[in-house]
Amino acid sequence: MLIVMKPDATSTEIDRVLEVIETLGFRGHTMPGENRTAIGITGNRGSVDPAHFENLAGVADAIRVTKPYKLISKELRPEKSIIKVGNATIGGPELAIIAGPCAVETVDQVFAAAEAVAKSGAKFFRGGAFKPRTSPYAFQGKGEDGLKILADVRDQFGLNIVTEAMDEHGIDLVEKYGDCIQIGARNMQNFSLLKYAGKTRKPVLLKRGLSATLDEFMLAAEYIMAEGNYDVILCERGIRTFADHARNTMDLSIVPALHRYTHLPVIVDPSHGTGHNYMVTPLARAGVAVGADGLIIEIHPCPEEALCDGAQALTPVQYAALVSQVNEIYKTVENYEPALAIL
Amino acid sequence: MLIVMKPDATSTEIDRVLEVIETLGFRGHTMPGENRTAIGITGNRGSVDPAHFENLAGVADAIRVTKPYKLISKELRPEKSIIKVGNATIGGPELAIIAGPCAVETVDQVFAAAEAVAKSGAKFFRGGAFKPRTSPYAFQGKGEDGLKILADVRDQFGLNIVTEAMDEHGIDLVEKYGDCIQIGARNMQNFSLLKYAGKTRKPVLLKRGLSATLDEFMLAAEYIMAEGNYDVILCERGIRTFADHARNTMDLSIVPALHRYTHLPVIVDPSHGTGHNYMVTPLARAGVAVGADGLIIEIHPCPEEALCDGAQALTPVQYAALVSQVNEIYKTVENYEPALAIL
Amino acid sequence: MLIVMKPDATSTEIDRVLEVIETLGFRGHTMPGENRTAIGITGNRGSVDPAHFENLAGVADAIRVTKPYKLISKELRPEKSIIKVGNATIGGPELAIIAGPCAVETVDQVFAAAEAVAKSGAKFFRGGAFKPRTSPYAFQGKGEDGLKILADVRDQFGLNIVTEAMDEHGIDLVEKYGDCIQIGARNMQNFSLLKYAGKTRKPVLLKRGLSATLDEFMLAAEYIMAEGNYDVILCERGIRTFADHARNTMDLSIVPALHRYTHLPVIVDPSHGTGHNYMVTPLARAGVAVGADGLIIEIHPCPEEALCDGAQALTPVQYAALVSQVNEIYKTVENYEPALAIL
Amino acid sequence: MLIVMKPDATSTEIDRVLEVIETLGFRGHTMPGENRTAIGITGNRGSVDPAHFENLAGVADAIRVTKPYKLISKELRPEKSIIKVGNATIGGPELAIIAGPCAVETVDQVFAAAEAVAKSGAKFFRGGAFKPRTSPYAFQGKGEDGLKILADVRDQFGLNIVTEAMDEHGIDLVEKYGDCIQIGARNMQNFSLLKYAGKTRKPVLLKRGLSATLDEFMLAAEYIMAEGNYDVILCERGIRTFADHARNTMDLSIVPALHRYTHLPVIVDPSHGTGHNYMVTPLARAGVAVGADGLIIEIHPCPEEALCDGAQALTPVQYAALVSQVNEIYKTVENYEPALAIL
Repeated sequence: MLIVMKPDATSTEIDRVLEVIETLGFRGHTMPGENRTAIGITGNRGSVDPAHFENLAGVADAIRVTKPYKLISKELRPEKSIIKVGNATIGGPELAIIAGPCAVETVDQVFAAAEAVAKSGAKFFRGGAFKPRTSPYAFQGKGEDGLKILADVRDQFGLNIVTEAMDEHGIDLVEKYGDCIQIGARNMQNFSLLKYAGKTRKPVLLKRGLSATLDEFMLAAEYIMAEGNYDVILCERGIRTFADHARNTMDLSIVPALHRYTHLPVIVDPSHGTGHNYMVTPLARAGVAVGADGLIIEIHPCPEEALCDGAQALTPVQYAALVSQVNEIYKTVENYEPALAIL
Repeated sequence: MLIVMKPDATSTEIDRVLEVIETLGFRGHTMPGENRTAIGITGNRGSVDPAHFENLAGVADAIRVTKPYKLISKELRPEKSIIKVGNATIGGPELAIIAGPCAVETVDQVFAAAEAVAKSGAKFFRGGAFKPRTSPYAFQGKGEDGLKILADVRDQFGLNIVTEAMDEHGIDLVEKYGDCIQIGARNMQNFSLLKYAGKTRKPVLLKRGLSATLDEFMLAAEYIMAEGNYDVILCERGIRTFADHARNTMDLSIVPALHRYTHLPVIVDPSHGTGHNYMVTPLARAGVAVGADGLIIEIHPCPEEALCDGAQALTPVQYAALVSQVNEIYKTVENYEPALAIL
Repeated sequence: MLIVMKPDATSTEIDRVLEVIETLGFRGHTMPGENRTAIGITGNRGSVDPAHFENLAGVADAIRVTKPYKLISKELRPEKSIIKVGNATIGGPELAIIAGPCAVETVDQVFAAAEAVAKSGAKFFRGGAFKPRTSPYAFQGKGEDGLKILADVRDQFGLNIVTEAMDEHGIDLVEKYGDCIQIGARNMQNFSLLKYAGKTRKPVLLKRGLSATLDEFMLAAEYIMAEGNYDVILCERGIRTFADHARNTMDLSIVPALHRYTHLPVIVDPSHGTGHNYMVTPLARAGVAVGADGLIIEIHPCPEEALCDGAQALTPVQYAALVSQVNEIYKTVENYEPALAIL
Repeated sequence: MLIVMKPDATSTEIDRVLEVIETLGFRGHTMPGENRTAIGITGNRGSVDPAHFENLAGVADAIRVTKPYKLISKELRPEKSIIKVGNATIGGPELAIIAGPCAVETVDQVFAAAEAVAKSGAKFFRGGAFKPRTSPYAFQGKGEDGLKILADVRDQFGLNIVTEAMDEHGIDLVEKYGDCIQIGARNMQNFSLLKYAGKTRKPVLLKRGLSATLDEFMLAAEYIMAEGNYDVILCERGIRTFADHARNTMDLSIVPALHRYTHLPVIVDPSHGTGHNYMVTPLARAGVAVGADGLIIEIHPCPEEALCDGAQALTPVQYAALVSQVNEIYKTVENYEPALAIL
């Protein structure tokens, strides 16, 4: 924390700031400048709320310096985390592809999708049994019955199951039937749910909230890790902006930013990130090109009949073409990454 | 739903769209234009997902026409709802003021704040026992012990208690100790929590999410109402934008918009909406001037010592000045409202 | 500028940073902390670009401390500026109301509007002769002929003319026929135009850009002032956000922020700020309640026939009701302002 | 345009809407639905302003159906435009790379950069002689002297010069010395400048405004084309959002959107789009992977000494590595594009 005093701050005002710093148990360092005095704060373990200083007389600004996260930080763990999900990994040398329908609808639909996913060489299957829908009158998912169908997919195709939970009961069920608990964008700051997920033994796929900053996203993961579950996979899925040509605005620059500050793997969701079939493949390519460790893709054997989000689902043929392309791009990126590290 | 075909769409493509409309159980109405054909859809009770049509050959655009909400709608209930909260009301002829500290810290702090609130003539007291904090290492609230202190405030000062719940257990406790369940901005689309709140008998104060559109906000309320609890108060508390001079950007134009489309009362939170002490009073005045039915204000006997959000808390003296001002403005607005209705 | 070093930064890296600081002609102040070293920079007159440091080895962050504006700053001129516009003032004790049609269309339309404006007691008339339109095929304004009609309004009604210029030629013409040069939101960072306006002798009404931060807005005004024209009026007119219930999102919190940091008067435009007739009066009330020095309002004798922006224009009857309301609210705010200053 | 009436709209209200439609010279088509009536409008050549209808009694909503652009539209010209810039092309089979320093500073700096650009096989050189700077006190560019240095680069290295103009005088000079006129993000809706650029014979590189929607971006290009200059290259350079880890948020989904709706080539600027050296290469890869026709990249022989935007400039070594990577990715994308067209 750095406190910047106003040009006309009196020495009494400066002393009062130093006093408050000491009251809070920290140390203050006065730095007189040409026009104004600044006061550095040291000795704080966590972050200090600028609130304590902002309204004191003579204070112009209170600026946060130290970042508030710990376990997620690369400073704590410089090497990249590889997360085991069922019998495969995310964050390792291979590009992780998670694919499947938005919602589990019928056995036929799910198995047709699973066949396409298995054939593509992907190791993870997605499909929602609990659906967070904007309207209470929209299809809300098949619940436990849906999870059972997903468990059958694992048995039959050897695919690892990634599926969303929206509450504690849902987490219990996903822990039972699935391999990875997905926490959706709308729940990214559902702190009770994050804590509960932190107590499970299954890895957690955490989606970025629609208006989450880098810090908020990292701190949401920190909530899970602080409870003892270090197996977190971060997922960029588009943010809320004024741009109206896509359902959300994919913010791919967060991928290199996360790789710079955290050791966790990062994947990208171009299906929810764009909301339009014709954008999914280009943005999937871009996600891999920017350095993501994996993708999560919605496919549907017959998109126009989907009960949910059909507009963004790829057909199996489109999906197969996507996988070839991203695998090629992944090789290009992988070859160059070490060379760049020298710079 | 209106489907706009491309200029060069063939009649086979148009027929395929009509077929899909019928498959979904609706009726299609073809409207040939000079350059292109449009197809209207009728017969749908809820909303139709544009997804079903967007990828069909020959379709240029699928435009939603009917709004997806029902119970909250003014078309269903034209007169304004007055919500009973404890022994007082929100949405009635009187401006509702809810005030108190951000977090319940100590008995002394809470009682000092309650005295200021009671003295001002306000009928509602706020104070958080469960605090949704961005960082897992920040103060998380005093839990049930905090709620007991709030219950004591009601007994001693006759103030009605508005306090936040973050999960089902929290809702049970607030139902027991408080008068109104607050659901925070970060949980506005925690649909499991909304449904659970919809089953209680206490009114719910629902805060707008940081990136919620008008429709999403109204549909979040609809989730609560669809479970049988019609006592919902809507609260604008600032949205997430690029503007960096305030913690959030207060979007006061949503107040007249909500009054146009829904019968529920709307209040405004200038404390979280701005995050800066010096902005709270001006924005509180603006909130009342724009037509809000009430305000929720953070006060603290000693803001610079607050464990949480001290930068935005008003001192009791500042708060008293605020109350005088907004009461005067409320009278001005009230006097003119009927005249405007004639226009 | 404050440079925060990484926890593992070496002393060689720290020395390199100090060297770069000296190369730039400034002084560096090393502040060793418990976990990391910070380096303060003093001796800079203007702002230092963080760019110079961000990529140096061992640097974690470069944080701007000093604000880059001068002439607009309250530190330079603590008392509020009162700007003379024609025979009246903006920023003085009276609420300034600027009203008139979006575009000058016909003599009849303009004179009918001017009559309503004069009758209301307002002293300023607006009306566009040059219209910045999103589409090249939309009505672009009547040009010099329109300005002549506005000059006639001044002669006949004694109203002072505020009208937009979009280029140097337009500024020359507005200087000739009008009393105040409006620079629109889309030109807020048209730096060539700002410089040209800075060389005129007429006051400038500068609208905030759709995505302008507080700093950018103030620096745009600084561009005009740096050329010698200190008569600038700032205008909040809504920003671009995800919210879709209004054409723009009015960011009223910028009014107290501007009053805190600058001595210039600030007005609010609820017509462009909302884009909907039914929102204009509530937001005009809010703008005055938040502390604006004036309003700019669009009216039209017959809004549904307007060639431009009819949806937001008030009828003369609606406008008259608005003026009564805001004058009452202005009195309330004025009475309390001094009291607040004591706090 | 589609007018949706309220459920309780009377037949008199419907007739009034039809009357207004006819007054405007269009035709109205009444479509009675189960709950409400809709009225389609045909016969309009350009776009109809919803404003004309929104405030009429009984109207619930006015929805735009036809897009307002013409010359830029793929419906007008289905095949992709290839733009000639000097002795090379943008939008053709080859990936176009434009590289060079942010600002022209010295002959040595520019020539060192040009050597790296020529060596990489790129055919276009960038460098600013007129710099739009947020602060009036920041370095504003070398003007005509800078343009002469750029002209020398063309003579010596055979590179085609892309450089920004900020006003009419600047356009005249760039037309004289350069090969392509760049119009910056802040001038994207400087309509006078767009019209002036539309009258030149040099191609125009138009950057997307910080808060421009797809439609606004396309209409800005339409302004240039409407004056007779069809050689426009569109450039995505990041938008203004709440996200604070990058200077702007690159919105790569606009690339496939532009390719869907317009025939113009689209390039991507990852330097301004991110503002951070470490993000430029990943986002350049992503830009090519998403389908851009080219890149514009800032390089500097010695970034830490740059007078402007040094934080985002690549060193020549970093730039060379970038070029190899994007060329490989471009081949992958190119190979698959036709296959996708079948879907």
